[in-house]
Amino acid sequence: MLPEIYEDVCNLIEQKKFAEVKQLLQNMHPADIAQLINELPEEFRLLTFRLLSAETASDVLPELYDEIKDELINKIKEVRFLKILDEMDSDEATDILADLEHSRTESLLKKLDKIDFEDSSEIRQLIKYPEDTAGGIMQLEVIAVKPDMKRDEIVEYIKSQAHEVENIHYAFVIDSKNKLLGRLDITKLLWQSAQARAKDIMDTDIITADVELDQEQVAHLFRKYDLYILPVIDKQGHLLGRITVDDVIDVIDEEASEDAYKMVGLESEDKVFTKPLNSVRKRLPWLTLNLFTALIVSSVVGIFENTIQQLSVLAVLMPIVAGLGGNSGTQTLTVITRGIALGELTIHNTFRAILKEIGVGVINGIIIGSFATVIAYFLKGNLMLGIILGAAMICNMFIAGLMGSLIPIIMKSLKIDPALASSVIITMLTDIGGFASFLGFATIFLT
Amino acid sequence: MLPEIYEDVCNLIEQKKFAEVKQLLQNMHPADIAQLINELPEEFRLLTFRLLSAETASDVLPELYDEIKDELINKIKEVRFLKILDEMDSDEATDILADLEHSRTESLLKKLDKIDFEDSSEIRQLIKYPEDTAGGIMQLEVIAVKPDMKRDEIVEYIKSQAHEVENIHYAFVIDSKNKLLGRLDITKLLWQSAQARAKDIMDTDIITADVELDQEQVAHLFRKYDLYILPVIDKQGHLLGRITVDDVIDVIDEEASEDAYKMVGLESEDKVFTKPLNSVRKRLPWLTLNLFTALIVSSVVGIFENTIQQLSVLAVLMPIVAGLGGNSGTQTLTVITRGIALGELTIHNTFRAILKEIGVGVINGIIIGSFATVIAYFLKGNLMLGIILGAAMICNMFIAGLMGSLIPIIMKSLKIDPALASSVIITMLTDIGGFASFLGFATIFLT
Repeated sequence: MLPEIYEDVCNLIEQKKFAEVKQLLQNMHPADIAQLINELPEEFRLLTFRLLSAETASDVLPELYDEIKDELINKIKEVRFLKILDEMDSDEATDILADLEHSRTESLLKKLDKIDFEDSSEIRQLIKYPEDTAGGIMQLEVIAVKPDMKRDEIVEYIKSQAHEVENIHYAFVIDSKNKLLGRLDITKLLWQSAQARAKDIMDTDIITADVELDQEQVAHLFRKYDLYILPVIDKQGHLLGRITVDDVIDVIDEEASEDAYKMVGLESEDKVFTKPLNSVRKRLPWLTLNLFTALIVSSVVGIFENTIQQLSVLAVLMPIVAGLGGNSGTQTLTVITRGIALGELTIHNTFRAILKEIGVGVINGIIIGSFATVIAYFLKGNLMLGIILGAAMICNMFIAGLMGSLIPIIMKSLKIDPALASSVIITMLTDIGGFASFLGFATIFLT
Repeated sequence: MLPEIYEDVCNLIEQKKFAEVKQLLQNMHPADIAQLINELPEEFRLLTFRLLSAETASDVLPELYDEIKDELINKIKEVRFLKILDEMDSDEATDILADLEHSRTESLLKKLDKIDFEDSSEIRQLIKYPEDTAGGIMQLEVIAVKPDMKRDEIVEYIKSQAHEVENIHYAFVIDSKNKLLGRLDITKLLWQSAQARAKDIMDTDIITADVELDQEQVAHLFRKYDLYILPVIDKQGHLLGRITVDDVIDVIDEEASEDAYKMVGLESEDKVFTKPLNSVRKRLPWLTLNLFTALIVSSVVGIFENTIQQLSVLAVLMPIVAGLGGNSGTQTLTVITRGIALGELTIHNTFRAILKEIGVGVINGIIIGSFATVIAYFLKGNLMLGIILGAAMICNMFIAGLMGSLIPIIMKSLKIDPALASSVIITMLTDIGGFASFLGFATIFLT
């Protein structure tokens, strides 16, 4: 979207030339309109959104930032909101209704029933599936044909459904009980003879997803098998819906944000423009946990308070050992967590991965520790102090490699999300390791 | 892939029953074979890979981990490697050749020319584009038809190309000079009359990518416009190739890994099973930088060495202020960096984002600082010490909010990757902020 459009729209709204804004919006892609509304000042958003047709609005609404979406849904008239929902794909309407309060969702669904809204039963069905499963991201719009249908009948049927289903690309073949039998590639339908039957030309060796499969596993299937469209079935093999790759990209983005977020104790709803007090509330529990881990670290330092009283230079140097260990541990944690997320770590290779990280930690510890020894000797003129600093660093980088790999792997095997083995735990361990080894060695050899 | 298959293959290889392994592999999806080879012990990998047909091997090779791929490429016979390359899509063959040493790539390309390898000129063309641009991820396999072609001619042409191009889904319309005019949706071709001409039924309002566009921007286009296939053009509008959504998923994974990695100073090639010495070499520069930032922090603490000598309890409590500030700063950094990566932060809303993060930091500082004050008072029985601890925490959380948001935004505007505004810089600033404010207040009010 060009910045000029942003300026134009702002100027036209200020001059109350709404017909011209409407004209401008009609020539824009819904994704660009969504971006425009996301960036507009608050007082212009509703004005702009009102100028859209229900059909365009149904494409724009799901693309808005959550907080702006909620704001607009609360401000528009209910009749219009119902019309917009009517224009949406089943999966998007469900996502929006699922985010509202339960009582409001129910009242809206009842009203949709009354005005004979085609999708309300579908939404009632979809809303039951947890948001982060195959059922939660599938859509019910799917082209399904019977095995005895001939090529020309299939084409007629697809044509009759084409206004309802975007991005068709494949038709699915089901038996009389709705069990999935196979898949037809639309491209290959082009040159089939008019009499060819679905059952004779379908692929039967296809990848499917169980409706309860976690969305991260769904993304793995798309990634591994280079899929565009994935049929969703229940335990008995009945076709329930399909997942399209554009929705999977949203899942992949969401999971990547989540992993980055969990590493530093953030919740995924805590975005750039989440209301400040919501962000405060979301971050407080983790910072409180962090205060307690910091108190534990502090109490370890407290054990050596006498040593520090005798040699205050230790307090000056001790952040170096802890800092390097923390960073080295976070590097290992990131490599291992990402390896788990991308499915590279399996039962057959875990032990090798841990050994490698310990090795890398110790070798880096020896190199960086030697630098540190030399620097400390020149700065403070005390060789023993330098050697203790270097030795503590090697110890701590060993701890960093061991804990940075072991903790996420243990969490994975306990089915706890390994990204939660976040920096806070690793940092606590490397802080303790750094302070205890450095101050411990100093207590033994220098006092 | 079932764990049994792994066991079966290992047992069969140990018993040298290669014909049976071959049988097993023939019934597996190439992606599953790749996963199997990735997990097999080193001595079984080449044995297994040799049992694959050239066609299957061409699908398996690109899915292997980089180090295993390199190992196999170095061990297989050149004749076989050439056959495998011949079976690959242009973009995948290019990726593999581009990773080899330049002289080897050249010699292979010459041999490919001699055996009349169909794609060698295409590879020579593709290999010129930087890997992380639209040109670097596009494939040359694309269905392009002339505007005057009739529907039945188009279908015949697509049929003749179908063995060369996977995942067709769209045909593109080009003029006699290869300029892109529009796009045909294969599904809609199903019911067009035999006489309909491409120019009359094509969509002309389509999204395209310039060949030089950064791959991250390409991913944004797919994300925003929910694309499956994106045509790539040059500055003059000539059709050069197409990007498929499966390759974009790889880009999104790669960029997400890269962002997570840069935050902690890792290079993207540093994976779980990168050889230990390579990992050591890749991590050392950043740890060395980290040693210097730690020395700067240490020298700030050194300014207050006298104060610590008088009051060693300060050394016990000071890690708390620095630790909380560091975590709070990393939270802000993650929110802002992720907001930049997903395109949520723009020139119109940057200032608001910084103000928000400062506000969140200060409010959290007041709350956590109050806890800390009370706890320190009860532990150490010194109210003034507690108040100083709390005040230093508020100061440092202000610094965390300001720097955690300002630094990545400044880097973005200087066109430096904001993920490089990594934890090492933020942690240095919050360490300095924490130690200086706490020890500074203590020097003023307690000594």
